[in-house]
Amino acid sequence: MKRVEKILSGDVRSTARLIRDVEDGLRDAREEMKEIFHHTGGAHIIGITGAPGAGKSTLVDQLVQALRNQGKTVGIVAVDPTSPFTGGAVLGDRVRMQRHSIDTGVFIRSVATRGHLGGLSRSANDIVDILDATGKDVIIVETVGVGQDEVEIVHTAHTTVVTLAPGMGDDVQAIKAGILEVGDIFVVNKADREGSDKLIHELRAMLDRNKYPDGCWEPTVIKAQANRNQGIDDLLEKIERHRSFFDESGKREQLIRTRVRSRFLEAVKETLLEEAMERLENNDALEVIVSSLVTREKDPYSQAEEIVGRMLR
Amino acid sequence: MKRVEKILSGDVRSTARLIRDVEDGLRDAREEMKEIFHHTGGAHIIGITGAPGAGKSTLVDQLVQALRNQGKTVGIVAVDPTSPFTGGAVLGDRVRMQRHSIDTGVFIRSVATRGHLGGLSRSANDIVDILDATGKDVIIVETVGVGQDEVEIVHTAHTTVVTLAPGMGDDVQAIKAGILEVGDIFVVNKADREGSDKLIHELRAMLDRNKYPDGCWEPTVIKAQANRNQGIDDLLEKIERHRSFFDESGKREQLIRTRVRSRFLEAVKETLLEEAMERLENNDALEVIVSSLVTREKDPYSQAEEIVGRMLR
Repeated sequence: MKRVEKILSGDVRSTARLIRDVEDGLRDAREEMKEIFHHTGGAHIIGITGAPGAGKSTLVDQLVQALRNQGKTVGIVAVDPTSPFTGGAVLGDRVRMQRHSIDTGVFIRSVATRGHLGGLSRSANDIVDILDATGKDVIIVETVGVGQDEVEIVHTAHTTVVTLAPGMGDDVQAIKAGILEVGDIFVVNKADREGSDKLIHELRAMLDRNKYPDGCWEPTVIKAQANRNQGIDDLLEKIERHRSFFDESGKREQLIRTRVRSRFLEAVKETLLEEAMERLENNDALEVIVSSLVTREKDPYSQAEEIVGRMLR
Repeated sequence: MKRVEKILSGDVRSTARLIRDVEDGLRDAREEMKEIFHHTGGAHIIGITGAPGAGKSTLVDQLVQALRNQGKTVGIVAVDPTSPFTGGAVLGDRVRMQRHSIDTGVFIRSVATRGHLGGLSRSANDIVDILDATGKDVIIVETVGVGQDEVEIVHTAHTTVVTLAPGMGDDVQAIKAGILEVGDIFVVNKADREGSDKLIHELRAMLDRNKYPDGCWEPTVIKAQANRNQGIDDLLEKIERHRSFFDESGKREQLIRTRVRSRFLEAVKETLLEEAMERLENNDALEVIVSSLVTREKDPYSQAEEIVGRMLR
């Protein structure tokens, strides 16, 4: 049996191996991803983001449990920003997810932030596709919202949950507009802490200032204490409501089209750069150009324009 | 007088404006950057990186003062990772540099981390070029070493200083090999804190494990208490020694060639993507392809390969 067939039939080991091959950027893996793509589109993809310390991991852990109680299968893609200084420290958080690690209805994968162009969102998207193709009902993409890379991954999601906690110095004013715009549901976690009502109030006031055209989803704010399993049912209900809204309003088609489009453009960029750089590296002219730049005779921008003009049809 | 000429003659206002235009990605600015490039190569570029809290800003502040005392002019490019959650909080650090803000021999510029492809390193490189062309003797590129983007900027530098402090949880084991490899000089700052001798010892042991071929620079470790202005002279002396080493060993040529080369490749990538995406967006075929992806009839990777094949000569 081919590996893709094994994956489609739910084989965990083959799934894990393809994911690893995708992360390693193997050419064969890309061929398999072409096949995988035809079997995607079944899962509901939930993006969960928020500042470090907002309790995202605990929230995800409880959410997974609640989904499992409903009999749904779940895939989790946890994106860890890898700092060159702190290394994989954030990975420690994942330990909390351990109770799900022996549950065959749950597949968890941590993805480290990579440095290369679009590497992170590319492999995160691919992993979501793979889990989607294995037939998972729900896929959760958890990101630490500290960089643009992470925010972009949220764009893969159908429903985006932004997690906040009071007293973290991230009061509403400090939250960049970009985050408010991507959130469908806002969870004020650690709601027993001082300042949670103020945070909720400010958040609602800020969201109210936006105009939501008729037929658009209006973001909702809820309270939670994930560590006590409080607010999780409410969150699940809101996620379900958002999903129905999308299906019924016809917004789903539109959203999927936009995302597929930007993903295609990403694939074009990557393929283009790969092809073009391969040709350039094998071109004797490169070293001649570099020499003219070292002496400052020529400048890199004029030379780039010239060479690109010669490359493109 | 053309703006570039004004910049070359040291006009601060024109310099600041070109930098802003470069950051805004204006086409005209790129034309000016072509001219600027021919006047670069005079400055000694020092990269300073380290984990948040290691005291980099204070160190840079004192280093600038020491350089000014030697009569040298200094440009500073401070790269702030902009978190969508914490906003520009890190910018507050820059307040400490205020004492230099009225000194015409010093030019300070903060650059926020941008999300788009190569945006950060592109504009940081351009700003370094601009300050170089204005005739600054030394240019300091200060980055918070928390992401690959920041690490890549260090590659612009001729001399790279890595700043560490004891008791920050970033003991030597946690430091990614990538950082050890880029450092020419390691400063253990806040040396009055407990654990500084241990950190120095571990750092030296780790560096000693590397083999440095004959004629290579062996990284050096020094102690500092930047807030008390201690260790700054030592740092300056090591920087000077590293610079002489480079000039005399002929390594400088090699380093500059490698960097100019990778920078040229970046310019090619950017120009290529810009051109190609413009053509693609204006191509009716795009929406037809997107539709075939939405229905999962086609997959993005095969379609990308096909379209790239048609684009390249």
